[in-house]
Amino acid sequence: MIRIALDALGGDYAPDMVIDGAVRAVKANEGKFQVVLCGPKTEVEEGLKKLGYNGDAISVVDAPDFVAMDEHPTEVLRKKPNSGLVTCVGLQKKGLVQASVSAGNSGAMMASCLMLLGRSSENFARPPIGCAIPTGKNRAVLVDAGANVDEKASVLVDFAIAGSVFAECYLGYEKPKVALLNMGEEEKKGPAVIQEAYQLLKNSSLNFIGNVEGRDLIAGEADVVVCSGYTGNVVLKMLEGFYELHQELFGTIDTPAGHRFAQMWDYRSTGGALLLGLNGTGIIAHGRSDAKAIEQAVIAAYQYAESKVAEKVGQKLAEYKQS
Amino acid sequence: MIRIALDALGGDYAPDMVIDGAVRAVKANEGKFQVVLCGPKTEVEEGLKKLGYNGDAISVVDAPDFVAMDEHPTEVLRKKPNSGLVTCVGLQKKGLVQASVSAGNSGAMMASCLMLLGRSSENFARPPIGCAIPTGKNRAVLVDAGANVDEKASVLVDFAIAGSVFAECYLGYEKPKVALLNMGEEEKKGPAVIQEAYQLLKNSSLNFIGNVEGRDLIAGEADVVVCSGYTGNVVLKMLEGFYELHQELFGTIDTPAGHRFAQMWDYRSTGGALLLGLNGTGIIAHGRSDAKAIEQAVIAAYQYAESKVAEKVGQKLAEYKQS
Repeated sequence: MIRIALDALGGDYAPDMVIDGAVRAVKANEGKFQVVLCGPKTEVEEGLKKLGYNGDAISVVDAPDFVAMDEHPTEVLRKKPNSGLVTCVGLQKKGLVQASVSAGNSGAMMASCLMLLGRSSENFARPPIGCAIPTGKNRAVLVDAGANVDEKASVLVDFAIAGSVFAECYLGYEKPKVALLNMGEEEKKGPAVIQEAYQLLKNSSLNFIGNVEGRDLIAGEADVVVCSGYTGNVVLKMLEGFYELHQELFGTIDTPAGHRFAQMWDYRSTGGALLLGLNGTGIIAHGRSDAKAIEQAVIAAYQYAESKVAEKVGQKLAEYKQS
Repeated sequence: MIRIALDALGGDYAPDMVIDGAVRAVKANEGKFQVVLCGPKTEVEEGLKKLGYNGDAISVVDAPDFVAMDEHPTEVLRKKPNSGLVTCVGLQKKGLVQASVSAGNSGAMMASCLMLLGRSSENFARPPIGCAIPTGKNRAVLVDAGANVDEKASVLVDFAIAGSVFAECYLGYEKPKVALLNMGEEEKKGPAVIQEAYQLLKNSSLNFIGNVEGRDLIAGEADVVVCSGYTGNVVLKMLEGFYELHQELFGTIDTPAGHRFAQMWDYRSTGGALLLGLNGTGIIAHGRSDAKAIEQAVIAAYQYAESKVAEKVGQKLAEYKQS
């Protein structure tokens, strides 16, 4: 039985929405997986009681420390070993769970996974966040969605490799079309580091299609969109903001296109973002996760863990980096 | 009478759509301004004839050279003095027209305006493109929308000043709320240059409200959104992409909110972007401008020129830079 560790104190609406999401996830998937809620034991157990849950698919591990959103990532690991976040990843390191999910401090989650689970390849210096994003066509992979800043060109190439493998393993795309996010199609456009990455990618074995602009990203021209974690985070948040504005102005439009849009663009249905290039499944759920978003993130964690996406990505990455 | 120079060969649908846009603009604003179309004379005159235009609000200046989208900006000025783009700005330098509009190579337009018209302040090293963008609330100013890359922190501060003055002069906002586009609200988040700019802006006399994320940008939390020209271009193109996707999926929704959205988010109605910090009005229209977009850009150029927005921005900038 696959077991998922879930940080009970992670996210803007923790612990209530996190507990609620855990209950929803196990109820909708009986017998498939168990959830281990890591958080202040009494509080979490009371939350479960309030929801009337007394099944055995959810267990609680006491982890009383609270991690704030602005705490320094690597300090959290050192100073808050008894936080939900660090406890989750610690259980995973011991093999007691097969995936960890947190909607809390994403830098701390990345740092904890990196330090405790380790890189899939020593040559893969700066693991990124890979995120499936909606487009006008199908879903695409955005990488890095916010783990890094100020990357060198070679790091952007690593992102491209990781994103390509993720799109293959997770979205099932064959030879995914990989593109650099830029301010024009021409090779000589954009920041120096993007121009340098362009030359490296042109000579790689990836299916590199060149630069895409923001409009092409939305139109779905690329399967894998590569950019700095800074830009990726701006892109991701804009996609969310647009969905929210659309819902606020128009609600779900009652046509097939309207339902497809509402389903595909709702960030609560994406199931969180996967840390790429690590030995194991670490999921960063949205900071504003409600119960539905947590439910989806837990289900995604189960699917990732069951199909060993992180391990496959890691293995292929190691092969790429060796070749 | 205000005269607007228009690059007849600029843009993906030139010269037909440019000529059409010019005719629409003068017909809808009889007696207000004249348009000087700069392009291959015979071709432009035939285009006017085809549209049945024989009024005296449009004149033609022969400028046969063609500027490609990937030509190097400063080389265009040197090698293509008889292009529509350079001819427009040359007429403006001589005082024969009061504004120049091009939907062509935006780097070349920026370089030509910079070299021929000059900076409003010598301390203002890298003039940006300011663009009014749609949000869930009112319009905001995005700066830089794509003129620069790899800016230092002090250049981002210049963008903030220019954007703030533009929002004041053009959108009529008092003490516009200025924000840095970033991947989190915290001071210590994001690329080093953004963190450095944060500290500089915190100590400036601008109404600096801190960082905004992509979602806040869409929600309209800031009146002026400051970022690198690279990021700004991605943001601008994504806003266009959203609008296009929405129109493709749903068309204009027949409610007050639907009409407002269609009006506000249609990039063809924005009238192009203004070059900030120059001695004069230089407008960069969208590369994919159709006749409606050109019409709006010409009308915007007239409004900018008549209310001397560029000069006011320039004057205030010079004051800021001296203080």
